[in-house]
Amino acid sequence: MSVDPKPYYRIHVFACTNRRPEGNPRGSCAGRGSEDLRDYMKARVRQLELAGVRINNAGCLDRCELGPVMVIYPEGVWYGYHSREDVDEILQVHLVGGGRVERLRLPAGAEPPVMTA
Amino acid sequence: MSVDPKPYYRIHVFACTNRRPEGNPRGSCAGRGSEDLRDYMKARVRQLELAGVRINNAGCLDRCELGPVMVIYPEGVWYGYHSREDVDEILQVHLVGGGRVERLRLPAGAEPPVMTA
Repeated sequence: MSVDPKPYYRIHVFACTNRRPEGNPRGSCAGRGSEDLRDYMKARVRQLELAGVRINNAGCLDRCELGPVMVIYPEGVWYGYHSREDVDEILQVHLVGGGRVERLRLPAGAEPPVMTA
Repeated sequence: MSVDPKPYYRIHVFACTNRRPEGNPRGSCAGRGSEDLRDYMKARVRQLELAGVRINNAGCLDRCELGPVMVIYPEGVWYGYHSREDVDEILQVHLVGGGRVERLRLPAGAEPPVMTA
């Protein structure tokens, strides 16, 4: 297999902004305020001028019950977050410092999920 | 630094479905048919029942001129694709076989981009 080149984005953050109708039993990230938090995160990253970082909108990441959720690649680390303070901590500790915010990490999951529906 | 657990999704595909207004000089992935191709890709992955694979909608990935584009993580490989045949080749060669579709890969990029706007 070929060796892959360095990723185009050094840190690629996908923040779920999916919205389900009110009353859906799983809820949704947008229903829990993810759009405002995504806007805040984008604004802060622009202020910090972090090279190679992109904050991206994502559709449903299918971990709705834990939302708002984000996943950061290439490392594949997932966070649940609920406030600007949470966002700031993720930015400072993970994106700037290269560490992990253990209190906000999502559980690893048991078996790999299969897309059937 | 802590060691990260195995990613929640073994293969996480982000297909841009951003749509810009007609006439925008950069164009957009949805303006070039990415929504239909995304639907086709999702349907094929469901048929194949590939464990741990998720096909995700993404907002603008900021490589619009090369679109429709997708990025596959954790490996960070980017493809431009324009037909169902392209999608089938990516599914068979990359997702099923673990290889790379060299003819559809996007160029690596020079300097890491900075989000400023």
